[in-house]
Amino acid sequence: MPTVSAYAAPSATEPLVPITIERRETGPNDVLIAIRYAGICHSDIHLVRGDWGPVTYPQVVGHEIAGEVVEIGSEVSRFAVGDRVGVGCMVNSCRECENCRAGMENYCLKGNTQTYGSVDRDGTITQGGYSTHVVVDQDFVLRLPESIPYEAVAPLLCAGITTYSPLAHWNAGPGTKVAVVGMGGLGHLAVKIAAAMGAEVTVLSQSLSKQEDGRRFGASHYYATSDAATFDELANTFDLIVNTVSAPLKLDSYLRMLRLDGTMVNVGAPPEPLPLRVFSLFANRRSFAGSNIGSIAETQEMLDFCAEHGIAPETELIAADGINDAYERVLASDVRYRFVIDIATL
Amino acid sequence: MPTVSAYAAPSATEPLVPITIERRETGPNDVLIAIRYAGICHSDIHLVRGDWGPVTYPQVVGHEIAGEVVEIGSEVSRFAVGDRVGVGCMVNSCRECENCRAGMENYCLKGNTQTYGSVDRDGTITQGGYSTHVVVDQDFVLRLPESIPYEAVAPLLCAGITTYSPLAHWNAGPGTKVAVVGMGGLGHLAVKIAAAMGAEVTVLSQSLSKQEDGRRFGASHYYATSDAATFDELANTFDLIVNTVSAPLKLDSYLRMLRLDGTMVNVGAPPEPLPLRVFSLFANRRSFAGSNIGSIAETQEMLDFCAEHGIAPETELIAADGINDAYERVLASDVRYRFVIDIATL
Repeated sequence: MPTVSAYAAPSATEPLVPITIERRETGPNDVLIAIRYAGICHSDIHLVRGDWGPVTYPQVVGHEIAGEVVEIGSEVSRFAVGDRVGVGCMVNSCRECENCRAGMENYCLKGNTQTYGSVDRDGTITQGGYSTHVVVDQDFVLRLPESIPYEAVAPLLCAGITTYSPLAHWNAGPGTKVAVVGMGGLGHLAVKIAAAMGAEVTVLSQSLSKQEDGRRFGASHYYATSDAATFDELANTFDLIVNTVSAPLKLDSYLRMLRLDGTMVNVGAPPEPLPLRVFSLFANRRSFAGSNIGSIAETQEMLDFCAEHGIAPETELIAADGINDAYERVLASDVRYRFVIDIATL
Repeated sequence: MPTVSAYAAPSATEPLVPITIERRETGPNDVLIAIRYAGICHSDIHLVRGDWGPVTYPQVVGHEIAGEVVEIGSEVSRFAVGDRVGVGCMVNSCRECENCRAGMENYCLKGNTQTYGSVDRDGTITQGGYSTHVVVDQDFVLRLPESIPYEAVAPLLCAGITTYSPLAHWNAGPGTKVAVVGMGGLGHLAVKIAAAMGAEVTVLSQSLSKQEDGRRFGASHYYATSDAATFDELANTFDLIVNTVSAPLKLDSYLRMLRLDGTMVNVGAPPEPLPLRVFSLFANRRSFAGSNIGSIAETQEMLDFCAEHGIAPETELIAADGINDAYERVLASDVRYRFVIDIATL
């Protein structure tokens, strides 16, 4: 089994450190990818710190992976050596449940195999993209459009698809009013994508500090949620609210901004239960929904959409030895808007 | 102003008593209706007892009204004396907001004029259907199909439309699996209507005591929610759950029964906020929604649908002096399935 370099969390409380891990041999349906860039997602931090449950350490995280095919298995038809490819949040699924059969492997009923921290079919724990190489089944590999800057494309594989999927599913487009709550890694892409879809986009951010950026990304309006007047002014306004914030919000205040048949979709995941008054949903026949990344087919569609519309994440490129500092800055919301690790420095 | 007989609540704590009230003169666009039957809705009890806020007493309730046109205003074109008509939960709306303009006056943004307990445009408080006569703008009057038994039709005007509307909006029909939570006044009609629409219907009731009725109404399956195994067995099953229960439920347990893109719609209205885990919505891209009665056009559509499919509420006819006993039985869930007051006894 090939031994490769990586950066791993040795425990929930220690900084990430260089390490070597073993990858499986490239199987008949596998693609061996030399990773060039890996995005840092807030989920990476949640997982390594044990926020989402027990972790088997050392754990390598990273599920925004951009790289190049360096070897293919004997049955691989969709990729060739040299192809520029990506891997997102999942690397396999059961392929048998009704959701997998419907091509919605992100909603696999048996639980898909996540890119890191999942039990793989060989019983090992999957290890993520803060690493020089990864071996992935071809069915879970995406083709990266050449027109998106290589060093910036990685965050589309999680932050991009996580926001694109609900925007597409709930029909953001010309004539619709879309609000994006939070303008971080996910939110800034939600603004760009929704605007490119033709929707009238409003950013709802804690403060107005990123207002200029928001308008540059395509937002027509920008409001501070720290100002209570925002909620009155925007009552009954939006067809769709995409909430990218993981901290608990006052749901009823946000739901009140939905117009007839409007939907608020959470892609942020507060771990604690949130109180919700059913009366907030009666008015305007409102819905509160959740959305979880996107299918592989939809991820490819999103990449092609971004290429067509010139959408790329706003990134700050860092060296591997900057990961721990970057984590602190992510936690302090001090990043515009996504850290990407240059894997050549690993 | 005509003086008419009615049954009213003198306060939040006293029994309802006979009273006389004044109705307005029949205006140019009004219809004067001699009420024959009025259904008793749980909402009537909530309102008179002050559960939903302050009340101006004496208050006449009742928003499931069936009767006959006895006088029409000079501009009334849609109805003639002798027509069999109905009135539901609302008697007017602003007619100017975007929802009213879209024909969705049940979602009037200024708040429609409810059949009872609302401030009417002349400043008086509207008085409901436990009364011999009512004057209603023709635009809020429904035409009752002759084929539905007169003494049983009234509950369609609230319980019927409240369940028909979400079933129609969320596409209950052939190939869909619909669960109805609670089999009371609303629930029993939800079962009949969903089955007539062609859906595969499951009743989720506290116990199996009404199972035989449920199957007679068209349910294919019947489960007790007091049995924890129900929730495991039905995980990822339903396209639509219509929750008719006003008592607080464990939302996460119910949401877990929704399959991909499934929606749970509340028509029951627990006053307290309910805790909801967003993770329950991520799986299967689930939605939690509310629905509030239906528009006038949709109410007419529902009446015609029920006539076409031979659907009538199951009712127990009572005399006016039985209203207070009936209230106690409604509160004890001891009614199969809706009380209807014979207004001739008033």
